[in-house]
Amino acid sequence: MPEVQIEEVRRFMVESLVAVGAPETEAKLQADLLLYADTVGHFSHGLNRLELYVNDIKGGLTCPERKPVVLKESAATAWVDGMETLGATAANFCMDLAIKKAKESGVGWVSAKRTNHFGMAGYWAIKAEREGLIGMAFTNSSPVMVPTRSKQSACGTNPISMAAPALDGDSLVVDMATTAVAMGKIEVQIHKNEPIPEGWALGPDGNTTTDSQLAFKTAKLLPLGGLEGTSGHKGFCLSTMIEMFCSGLSGSNPSYKVPSWTFDKDTAPNLGQCFVAIDPECFAPGFAERVAGCLQHWRNLEPVDPSLPVLAPGDKERNIRQTTLSKGTIIYPQGQIDSCQLMAQKIGIKPLAVK
Amino acid sequence: MPEVQIEEVRRFMVESLVAVGAPETEAKLQADLLLYADTVGHFSHGLNRLELYVNDIKGGLTCPERKPVVLKESAATAWVDGMETLGATAANFCMDLAIKKAKESGVGWVSAKRTNHFGMAGYWAIKAEREGLIGMAFTNSSPVMVPTRSKQSACGTNPISMAAPALDGDSLVVDMATTAVAMGKIEVQIHKNEPIPEGWALGPDGNTTTDSQLAFKTAKLLPLGGLEGTSGHKGFCLSTMIEMFCSGLSGSNPSYKVPSWTFDKDTAPNLGQCFVAIDPECFAPGFAERVAGCLQHWRNLEPVDPSLPVLAPGDKERNIRQTTLSKGTIIYPQGQIDSCQLMAQKIGIKPLAVK
Repeated sequence: MPEVQIEEVRRFMVESLVAVGAPETEAKLQADLLLYADTVGHFSHGLNRLELYVNDIKGGLTCPERKPVVLKESAATAWVDGMETLGATAANFCMDLAIKKAKESGVGWVSAKRTNHFGMAGYWAIKAEREGLIGMAFTNSSPVMVPTRSKQSACGTNPISMAAPALDGDSLVVDMATTAVAMGKIEVQIHKNEPIPEGWALGPDGNTTTDSQLAFKTAKLLPLGGLEGTSGHKGFCLSTMIEMFCSGLSGSNPSYKVPSWTFDKDTAPNLGQCFVAIDPECFAPGFAERVAGCLQHWRNLEPVDPSLPVLAPGDKERNIRQTTLSKGTIIYPQGQIDSCQLMAQKIGIKPLAVK
Repeated sequence: MPEVQIEEVRRFMVESLVAVGAPETEAKLQADLLLYADTVGHFSHGLNRLELYVNDIKGGLTCPERKPVVLKESAATAWVDGMETLGATAANFCMDLAIKKAKESGVGWVSAKRTNHFGMAGYWAIKAEREGLIGMAFTNSSPVMVPTRSKQSACGTNPISMAAPALDGDSLVVDMATTAVAMGKIEVQIHKNEPIPEGWALGPDGNTTTDSQLAFKTAKLLPLGGLEGTSGHKGFCLSTMIEMFCSGLSGSNPSYKVPSWTFDKDTAPNLGQCFVAIDPECFAPGFAERVAGCLQHWRNLEPVDPSLPVLAPGDKERNIRQTTLSKGTIIYPQGQIDSCQLMAQKIGIKPLAVK
């Protein structure tokens, strides 16, 4: 499969966004976000999404030249209008604010309306973790999850992310959709021309399907836990909890009113997003040591299969990132590269230089 | 099955706790907590647990006459020593503090060490919800969850609870263990002499089992999501996130060091617990209306099976509670009643009057 230098991917991302009107600073922040996803192996949230961002700017749904605005604030909270800026612009603004408030008051809880897709949720949680804080980031999304017992989709994949600092740069990172899998994972299977496992999604008839194209078109993902007998209602519950933090607090669209990113290209999503930072210094001394102790305990557990060691949350992504950065290149499916070259032609930028 | 007047259950709970040394005020708070669980149908967290609390007091592991202490605080946070008081004593203290801070600073985030089992997590989230706030409560617990790929248990069931106020007394209530099911659900199957469904727990050989006695003894619950192929690692991730809020922030025992409540009767659990309150007034006006809008949307979804309507989180428990309160009695399995009468003899109180 084609291999591309990391810096060339960044160049391509920044130029693509600038070509359709994004200021360079904002384009760079957005490129950092997408590139991070690819370097940790979350290809569903990286270059794969660039064209959607480009199209949103071209269509006037994303307004990259604006700045987010604080509408209301207290010692530990802020309500923000994302102003339909690029996802990374609003998310950086909100998480910076949450970090500032956490350092002053112990907690910063920021909820924003009128935002666009902010990529990999964990990227924003990690931003706070790098300041020595617990970070969390949540977003709602278009309705692709089928609530337990329902015939139709009504909830977002509404991801939960949390990052906590340990010792020597180590950390615990949780980043998960509240569906069994995120929609992007199905897109990746389509790109690879492979089926999906059972239990990820329903077909139009309400039965589980392994056809990735059909699952993508039907957009009926099962909540984490699957069907009711295996506690799928818990995944549904988690999605509704995130809905309260996002649209509930911010007044954005609830997930069931969010237009589909892929099919509805005329309406701004008006997503709700939520950013939290907590200062462990306000609690028992030795937080990072305790996180490190847990990580070590989990990693040292005896595995069922000796070739598959027990991983702490975030280990898989950290390992992939280290390998990717030392190699200096990223491998993409041919279909992904073809889409990029077609887009480059359309918007008049230099095509992606494949190694 | 035997039926008992609600007020008689309360009398029995209060007298049992007082008989072994609890002050009446604290015994009443603890009884309210346990009784609430039974009235909403969560029998695993009600009368079923009374004898464990009684034994913990008798054994000196719970010290019901003490008061919790604030060790450190900021505008939005507090670090509390639960002082090994009854679960309800420390939890009431901490949630009252979180509510006060939320009303002053927008958010109250309280983490406590040296606490005892606080019953149904959702009960504490609802306490904040009744003040017009978003409430959340978390606890760690003894290690009964098998992390993904591990041969042995190492994480707690670490429940997540969240409650948000809607209109006219309606609310959204999430209350869920991060395992596929809580340990108490297996105990209930034992009381009923019934097997457990596949996918709840592993046997000693590392394969799933349907034998409820064996599953209880083995104490290897699967995380929400089940095995790795159906995203069981997400349930594991959720448990580790709650671990950070509980033992991470408070300095209590991490779950992997918490002694088993049922088998290890000589060591105080030193649990970590976390209580959060958020004031929606600090964000977009109309929070309760938006919660109501979501509840209505979900409840009105067309169900796959017309006899099984789609429920919003908390509906099942609210419906059971209304029925129970209007009936005025609670039905318990005979085995539960027998255990109570035996305990009554031992501690010298009037036996439970069965209708």
